[in-house]
Amino acid sequence: MAEKDQAALSPTFVPDRVGVVGLGLMGGSFAKALAAAGREVYGWNRTHSVTEMAEIETIAGELTDKTIPTCELIILAGYPQVSIDWLGEMANLISPGAIVIDTVGVKRIICERCGKISEGQPWTFVGCHPMAGTQYSGFAHARANMFHNAPMVVVPPQMDDFERVAILERLKHLLEPCGFGSFTLSTAENHDRMIAYTSQLAHVVSNAYVKSPTAQEHKGFSAGSYKDLTRVARLNAPMWTELFLDNADNLSREVGTIIENLQAYKDAIDARDAEKLQTLLAEGDRLKREAEAR
Amino acid sequence: MAEKDQAALSPTFVPDRVGVVGLGLMGGSFAKALAAAGREVYGWNRTHSVTEMAEIETIAGELTDKTIPTCELIILAGYPQVSIDWLGEMANLISPGAIVIDTVGVKRIICERCGKISEGQPWTFVGCHPMAGTQYSGFAHARANMFHNAPMVVVPPQMDDFERVAILERLKHLLEPCGFGSFTLSTAENHDRMIAYTSQLAHVVSNAYVKSPTAQEHKGFSAGSYKDLTRVARLNAPMWTELFLDNADNLSREVGTIIENLQAYKDAIDARDAEKLQTLLAEGDRLKREAEAR
Repeated sequence: MAEKDQAALSPTFVPDRVGVVGLGLMGGSFAKALAAAGREVYGWNRTHSVTEMAEIETIAGELTDKTIPTCELIILAGYPQVSIDWLGEMANLISPGAIVIDTVGVKRIICERCGKISEGQPWTFVGCHPMAGTQYSGFAHARANMFHNAPMVVVPPQMDDFERVAILERLKHLLEPCGFGSFTLSTAENHDRMIAYTSQLAHVVSNAYVKSPTAQEHKGFSAGSYKDLTRVARLNAPMWTELFLDNADNLSREVGTIIENLQAYKDAIDARDAEKLQTLLAEGDRLKREAEAR
Repeated sequence: MAEKDQAALSPTFVPDRVGVVGLGLMGGSFAKALAAAGREVYGWNRTHSVTEMAEIETIAGELTDKTIPTCELIILAGYPQVSIDWLGEMANLISPGAIVIDTVGVKRIICERCGKISEGQPWTFVGCHPMAGTQYSGFAHARANMFHNAPMVVVPPQMDDFERVAILERLKHLLEPCGFGSFTLSTAENHDRMIAYTSQLAHVVSNAYVKSPTAQEHKGFSAGSYKDLTRVARLNAPMWTELFLDNADNLSREVGTIIENLQAYKDAIDARDAEKLQTLLAEGDRLKREAEAR
């Protein structure tokens, strides 16, 4: 990142004012949480009717050429490519000293592209991924308490420690009404590797789970385990396609790993090998306990 | 089943009195639910200290040669083979007119073996599978509300319709304090086919999910989807091994199906084929909606 002389540029933002780009489940929830705490929120959405709906109860107005320079915090909450495109187009309107974050579920591509756009600009881009959500999409399902106690993964840009601490403190203050449970600092590479497992694989497995023909007869024969395994089978297919392909290397490896592991159980079952099967099951039980104890 | 002349034999049971064989998570929950409703419950457990623990607050006494003949309902809630062995040993002690049910998660082997034991006896065996549970085991985790609103799958024996209706009505009355949400009649074959998918596959997939090395680093990077997918990774390995091998044909087929489906996503990801990947994801989303709408 080029050196910045932020002191030479006067901020044009109104303290604590927030702009939200993309008023879906994530952006809508940020808007609702921040507005509920009295913060002034300006919003933009590709489909304009959603912005109008948000104006009824949540946002103070539209995020436009006029209001962009007045925001201290801008949250990019659209699909990956939409977020990158928006930032590229609006980069010169953003106030000196402002912080721009995103909420995208992959970080390598976002931090690289948005980092590049922010080079030489008097504002700072910080990659973020709030680890929350539901199986539903859209502003109507957004809610002010979406991020309560959720982990927030933060990928700070290259900067010296002093600058980084200052930026993170400001960011925590700005997001305080969201009630995040923790802030986890990470590199983009580590984030994408972890998320392929904790979130993306879960969606693939759940989506695959319902493809058994037996799924359509489950009523009267299912309890909590079926419900849990298939909850995120419902998903926004275009969005997840983009996220998966932006993290194809990591996700492919995780899908391969679970296929291999599943095959081991199938082999033991087919061989009616009780000892092997019990060893496999006990191993999973142990690993789950260990994972939660860490 | 041999013809029975139950009228010729006088019941020795005390109305509504219940015997529970195996005081684990399931048996313990039946005992707690029925005792809380004022029913007299007698219990037996392979490890005797558990029976003693249950005697403190839950059961009226031990299920013995003396109390077995006084029970109107006997619930076999142990592992499959333990349940079968107990019934074979105690068959002649059970009161004329009594109902014996089991709670085992597979029904073909249980209904065949227990059905055989009940042949010519003046009591009736009804295969049952309460679709409830948690990832924990043992009496300490049992609770009176375990079955609230849960589906109860019932596999009635071969009998004429009039007899079957009478038995089911009595069973519903006897189990009324458990608060089951529904009673689903099924054949043993259909039950085992369904349960391989709705319950057994869920445990295999969840158990396999935690075997990725990434699982041990998940803290700070996980949200609801990881939690849901891995909840039942914790399991009682010896019990599930027995259940899985008693349903090996159905379970193997379901594990094979999900492996095949997962491979299709992996292929699309490896080929960076966005169109194919989106089609696969949209198909899962649609099938999940359809499964819940039925």
